[in-house]
Amino acid sequence: MSTAVSTDPRTGESTPVAPESTPGEVAMVARAAADAAPGLAAIGRAGRAALLRVAAARLEDAGDEIVDTADRETAIGPDRLRGELARTCFQLRLFADVAEEGSYLEATVDHARDTPMGPGPDLRRMLVPLGPVAVFGASNFPLAFSVPGGDTASAIAAGCPVVVKAHESHPATSLLAFRALRAAANEVGAPDRTVGVVLGKRAGAALVADPHITAVGFTGSAAGARALQEIINDRPDPIPFYGELSSINPVVITPAAAAARGAAIAEGMIASVTTSAGQLCTKPGLAFVPLGAAGDALVARMAELVAATPPRYLLNARIHDSYGRLSSRLGGLAGVEVVSTGPGPDGAGFGAAAELLTVAADDLRPEVTEECFGPLVVAVRYRDHDELLAALRELPGSLAAAVHAEDGHPDDADLEPLLDVLRPRAGRILFDGYPTGVLVAWAQTHGGPWPATNTVHTSVGPTAIRRFLRPLTWQNAPQRVLPPELRDDGPAIPHRIDGILRLPS
Amino acid sequence: MSTAVSTDPRTGESTPVAPESTPGEVAMVARAAADAAPGLAAIGRAGRAALLRVAAARLEDAGDEIVDTADRETAIGPDRLRGELARTCFQLRLFADVAEEGSYLEATVDHARDTPMGPGPDLRRMLVPLGPVAVFGASNFPLAFSVPGGDTASAIAAGCPVVVKAHESHPATSLLAFRALRAAANEVGAPDRTVGVVLGKRAGAALVADPHITAVGFTGSAAGARALQEIINDRPDPIPFYGELSSINPVVITPAAAAARGAAIAEGMIASVTTSAGQLCTKPGLAFVPLGAAGDALVARMAELVAATPPRYLLNARIHDSYGRLSSRLGGLAGVEVVSTGPGPDGAGFGAAAELLTVAADDLRPEVTEECFGPLVVAVRYRDHDELLAALRELPGSLAAAVHAEDGHPDDADLEPLLDVLRPRAGRILFDGYPTGVLVAWAQTHGGPWPATNTVHTSVGPTAIRRFLRPLTWQNAPQRVLPPELRDDGPAIPHRIDGILRLPS
Repeated sequence: MSTAVSTDPRTGESTPVAPESTPGEVAMVARAAADAAPGLAAIGRAGRAALLRVAAARLEDAGDEIVDTADRETAIGPDRLRGELARTCFQLRLFADVAEEGSYLEATVDHARDTPMGPGPDLRRMLVPLGPVAVFGASNFPLAFSVPGGDTASAIAAGCPVVVKAHESHPATSLLAFRALRAAANEVGAPDRTVGVVLGKRAGAALVADPHITAVGFTGSAAGARALQEIINDRPDPIPFYGELSSINPVVITPAAAAARGAAIAEGMIASVTTSAGQLCTKPGLAFVPLGAAGDALVARMAELVAATPPRYLLNARIHDSYGRLSSRLGGLAGVEVVSTGPGPDGAGFGAAAELLTVAADDLRPEVTEECFGPLVVAVRYRDHDELLAALRELPGSLAAAVHAEDGHPDDADLEPLLDVLRPRAGRILFDGYPTGVLVAWAQTHGGPWPATNTVHTSVGPTAIRRFLRPLTWQNAPQRVLPPELRDDGPAIPHRIDGILRLPS
Repeated sequence: MSTAVSTDPRTGESTPVAPESTPGEVAMVARAAADAAPGLAAIGRAGRAALLRVAAARLEDAGDEIVDTADRETAIGPDRLRGELARTCFQLRLFADVAEEGSYLEATVDHARDTPMGPGPDLRRMLVPLGPVAVFGASNFPLAFSVPGGDTASAIAAGCPVVVKAHESHPATSLLAFRALRAAANEVGAPDRTVGVVLGKRAGAALVADPHITAVGFTGSAAGARALQEIINDRPDPIPFYGELSSINPVVITPAAAAARGAAIAEGMIASVTTSAGQLCTKPGLAFVPLGAAGDALVARMAELVAATPPRYLLNARIHDSYGRLSSRLGGLAGVEVVSTGPGPDGAGFGAAAELLTVAADDLRPEVTEECFGPLVVAVRYRDHDELLAALRELPGSLAAAVHAEDGHPDDADLEPLLDVLRPRAGRILFDGYPTGVLVAWAQTHGGPWPATNTVHTSVGPTAIRRFLRPLTWQNAPQRVLPPELRDDGPAIPHRIDGILRLPS
């Protein structure tokens, strides 16, 4: 039997954490989650909101231990991890608000009436939980996209029990977070097995195949997603699979912006490229920089900053090896030049050097636009607007795309042709900023066209809850069998009644 | 080259309609749809609402010819076809209202503000069209689920051009409806290629593989859906596939209901089973009838009605052959008894006899619960409540499930255990009625757990529009690049602003 281990990226040394889950254990945890569903329904929206809030409090209680453990397992650094804990708790509390506010239910009542097709029945509809959700923790966010992360918060708010497949990079952190969630469940009277955890890659595969699992939330590689999708395709009942996969996140700098504030853009870019060692799904992988003096200066400043970037520890051996392999391959491609490399790591662990590469826009091709997870960016030098747009049209879908333009400059007066190319290729378009930093907010979209994701939903923000719900309609139902939210004397939540959206007064 | 033909189900005779679409033609139609997308965006929600309303008017103008043609191709009968035309036009006009009302956009604004994670940007989000949608017309609704049907209405309202793969059962009807839609597009200044049509099974496969297609709406068999899903899995970019597949739609009759109004229930059941020759996805395939005298009388009355049901023409040779094969196989299964058969067809065409079968609840098994498309129902005789629930637990997912219970009767006071079993197995639960008849309404759900559908959405009613949209967020965007609905001085539609849902005053 295999053992899940904590590996310190700063030394490469491993210590055992717990045995990996056997197939029998996975089946038991999945069944326990299914058994927890009625209890999680029974505590209602208020109970689930309480669960989410108490979970945030218990995570905060264990904050020091969690941050220490996560730092030892990921080398992300205590500052960012404390920020991630704050974000995770903010997220849990926001989803508590979402559960209470109730608009996510899309509660709808159509009273019996005459229609051109004859008399219509009384129809009442709302969204109901799908059932147990499998969540795959991410390597790069041991909290915010892992056991207590956004998928878990969405699923619980929706009323779905969760089984998390802990990421190999941080099993000890995952178990600490799991204990905080379970303590919260016990404290508010939710079923003990509202949240479960399994360990090990094979456990993840078994989980996705398990008949009790009704949906999957995944953050990871496109290859990993393809493998899980194949397992789903082989199920007798294919289930929804919501994956966040791979993203190159282009940043476009217009000539006017390069001229007006090239140095500041270079600094913002390299900060965005190297934060969290470049291991963010929204890391800008491509910077489109105009040819000419202003663009040259911008690239030169980026090169200086990269040369001064100390080596960063990557999350695990796989990402470390993959970064080495991919950065070497990129640097060796015809037309690609390695402009600057930061100081290399010394000694043990999974250290890696930052890198800046350049390529001409008319040399951009799929090998160059593959995501390289780590502190590397490719500056794409373009001659003119037409060449820029032609190069952008060849890009795969991204989570985010950024535009740096000069608001008052006549050259940048009409951004429409540029945005026409970017809109179909991104889930978020941002202006005069950098793609990293994804605020948990109602208006957020963390999702984009394939291969960024395989879904038409966001995985960050309250609307992520929709992924784990399905509509159910009651026709001519007696009041007593309706859920409270659809009764005539139901709670004060938004309703659509006879076609008209109404808010509680 | 193959030719699409009209086949009259009453005679089996075919007449040629048009050549099937070649792969090159499919590619051209899909590209033309992609080229139409910007124009369809440019006319805005008001323009798309006008398009949907004029489409309804043009279909009504051509109503007599459409009904005659559809009746010749499907033998559905002019009365139901006129009703279907009314429903189709009602649906198009309802989606026009939906486009205008604008809540489907989920327009959301989060102003820049301080958060526990630091200063947050200005975020504005709404749903945007996915792009060209492939729609597969259904055999059994030549209008309401075909060229001018619900998938087309949803896609156009969303802002997505449509390419319909016309069903082999009614190519001439499909082309008439297509002409009405194209005339409407021209009349309102929408792109000429907002709607396209292709003919032939191979054209359908090519369409799903085409790189310009961004989503698929499908109504048909589970086997057909599996085949299309495989094509999608092989695409470099898997796209969303929304299928409505197969549904057994159980009707449960409690002992109290059987005693109180068994004869009326028998009449309602057989009307529901035989309407449209049983070729509705919501046809009740199983009736759970208690053992004992009241149940016996109910089954006897169903048997009388089936014996008196004249032969019905089925839609096409494939359905006719499949009905013959499946009904024979069902009747030959151990424990299954053929209780009553209607008079058989004489002469040519695709006629079929109605059938009533019975089986004991403890003999219910997957072979017996397979959908049999046509005028056939299986009465499942159950001994007691526990046996009823055990049998229901073995059922696959359905679009709808019905309960006949007696409101005042003490035996039926607590329906919860029954509903606990039905809820996870249906998209709509109805009381004291029959599953056929799906009103196009906001509170409708025409969707259910696999194999009823492969989706967490309805394909009937305004929320079906969500299938063809994806979220897009603008971060710190200048007002001038925002879509009108997200500008500070935007149109009067529902908005969520800083977390609070607000309606236009």
